[in-house]
Amino acid sequence: MPLKLLKSTGNEHNEYTKDQEVHVMNPYLDSMEEDILYHFSLSTRTHNLPKMFGDTKFVCVGGSASRMKAFAEFMHQELGLSGNAGDIQDICAGTDRYCMYKVGPVLSISHGMGVPSISIMLHELIKLLHHARCRDVILFRIGTSGGIGLPPGTVVITDKAVDSFFQPQFEQVVLGQVIVRSTELDKGLAQELLRCSGELPALPAIISNTMCTFDFYEGQGRLDGALCSFSPEEKLEYLHKAHKAGVRNIEMESTVFAAMCHICGLRAAVVCVTLLDRFEGDQISTPHDVLLEYQQRPQCLVSHFIKKRLGLPIMPTPPPQTSQGM
Amino acid sequence: MPLKLLKSTGNEHNEYTKDQEVHVMNPYLDSMEEDILYHFSLSTRTHNLPKMFGDTKFVCVGGSASRMKAFAEFMHQELGLSGNAGDIQDICAGTDRYCMYKVGPVLSISHGMGVPSISIMLHELIKLLHHARCRDVILFRIGTSGGIGLPPGTVVITDKAVDSFFQPQFEQVVLGQVIVRSTELDKGLAQELLRCSGELPALPAIISNTMCTFDFYEGQGRLDGALCSFSPEEKLEYLHKAHKAGVRNIEMESTVFAAMCHICGLRAAVVCVTLLDRFEGDQISTPHDVLLEYQQRPQCLVSHFIKKRLGLPIMPTPPPQTSQGM
Repeated sequence: MPLKLLKSTGNEHNEYTKDQEVHVMNPYLDSMEEDILYHFSLSTRTHNLPKMFGDTKFVCVGGSASRMKAFAEFMHQELGLSGNAGDIQDICAGTDRYCMYKVGPVLSISHGMGVPSISIMLHELIKLLHHARCRDVILFRIGTSGGIGLPPGTVVITDKAVDSFFQPQFEQVVLGQVIVRSTELDKGLAQELLRCSGELPALPAIISNTMCTFDFYEGQGRLDGALCSFSPEEKLEYLHKAHKAGVRNIEMESTVFAAMCHICGLRAAVVCVTLLDRFEGDQISTPHDVLLEYQQRPQCLVSHFIKKRLGLPIMPTPPPQTSQGM
Repeated sequence: MPLKLLKSTGNEHNEYTKDQEVHVMNPYLDSMEEDILYHFSLSTRTHNLPKMFGDTKFVCVGGSASRMKAFAEFMHQELGLSGNAGDIQDICAGTDRYCMYKVGPVLSISHGMGVPSISIMLHELIKLLHHARCRDVILFRIGTSGGIGLPPGTVVITDKAVDSFFQPQFEQVVLGQVIVRSTELDKGLAQELLRCSGELPALPAIISNTMCTFDFYEGQGRLDGALCSFSPEEKLEYLHKAHKAGVRNIEMESTVFAAMCHICGLRAAVVCVTLLDRFEGDQISTPHDVLLEYQQRPQCLVSHFIKKRLGLPIMPTPPPQTSQGM
């Protein structure tokens, strides 16, 4: 069971990126007559995946379906593609579990909230990229998060994705056994994104650790859930411990995202904006329009990165518009 | 921290149901000037929650947004309400995280996939029921699942919700500490649902244990994910162990649903249909129309229960229609 041995030494990324195919780590997959990607409503028998997806180079994933639709429309405009951005069709229209849009070499996919939800999507995405024989693919999670000791609106590019105990690892239960996986992300990619942020006006960004929890309320030390068994002082003590461990934001998907991309040889980055400073409070009470502007920042940053990579001219364009996805 | 002591002795349900308000277990909540239910896009300041929700008696939750909309339209028809079922509005239209519909005393809410996603919804739902001063509320999770040794299409009413190690408990990390909670469900309610199933044609149902996992592929012993490190024999060995522990279906939300309802004194049941028999395979390859009929079964059963409770005449009506939500 080689996966048990995949705890990172920190050097695998370079090896992976030299061999640029997408690795599924499943010896049975290629002998299956058909592979139904059930939660995408796609299949190797009914869809020509190489034709549909073979030229994909960038995959951007985020929790909210409407936000990922808005991002696809924004990228359509940014890449200067022909046709009407509003006409982009949801490739996963046969299901409402996820939505998926393709604009040029960019895939935009929603993943819902939490580790299990993004993990189902990632299994099927990685199989899709494999079946489509994609090469040199970079994945970005663009999302929202709670900040720790940062001004709201700061974009955090994740250095290490850590668990609730501040460890850079993800525990996966497989057949009743706990397997521990590394959650290291591509350091070069993070640095490149940080450089991009410096080229954009009004886009404060840092590289730091991101904590991934399985719960939004008790799991993140919030005092405003239906259940709360701790004091405000105990909450702050925990957040200070996280801060001391280099954590500057908290979200709910980064560890499994990092772990699965790492194993499958995909370069990956987590880019989340902070909507509030958890040292100051728990509720997200910032006005809607301000939150909208905040959540566009990761999208603008990743769009800038993609355009540079594609050698496209960098021109200021209006940010993506959405009224939902908060 | 009283929650640590809430491991069930099995007798609490009766006590809870005698005191029929919804208990939030948070001493800070009632002193908050405003409570923003962020992922519902509702707030105690901007919405009159007692007026909107005070008469709610049944809350039905399920993963898929389109399925829960179809269920609301179905209930509208079943309850004989005036107006057009197609005109029912999503109460959470300001966000795309969840959708919510109210038809008479019935709330229908989507919760996405996995424990973290349903847990956010449950925190905000329980606070909503508390703020709205609801009484005598019963919760149902109506969903889909993989079966173990059952004909596909069987409805499993959950006796105990168990984890990947077959234990009837849910582990919650709070401030870096693991707290263990009981996942017992209301046995009387399960029996009442089983009796209802006997009154409906073509609705095979059983009461048994349900396993809740954090992953759909490796976590459920599937051989068809992007990652697979075990053999078909090891997979079957694990499923046989689960079967021996009384598990007849596997899904991804029941433990936290049971645990949170238990703590907050809400009578609750998990009613999931099996889409396939995992002893026979991993992929969901049943034709779309057959899957649609299967997933209507939990809805029909719960609708029958609700109508009986309300003393409404039981008349056969066509099942809910949806083309999505698979």
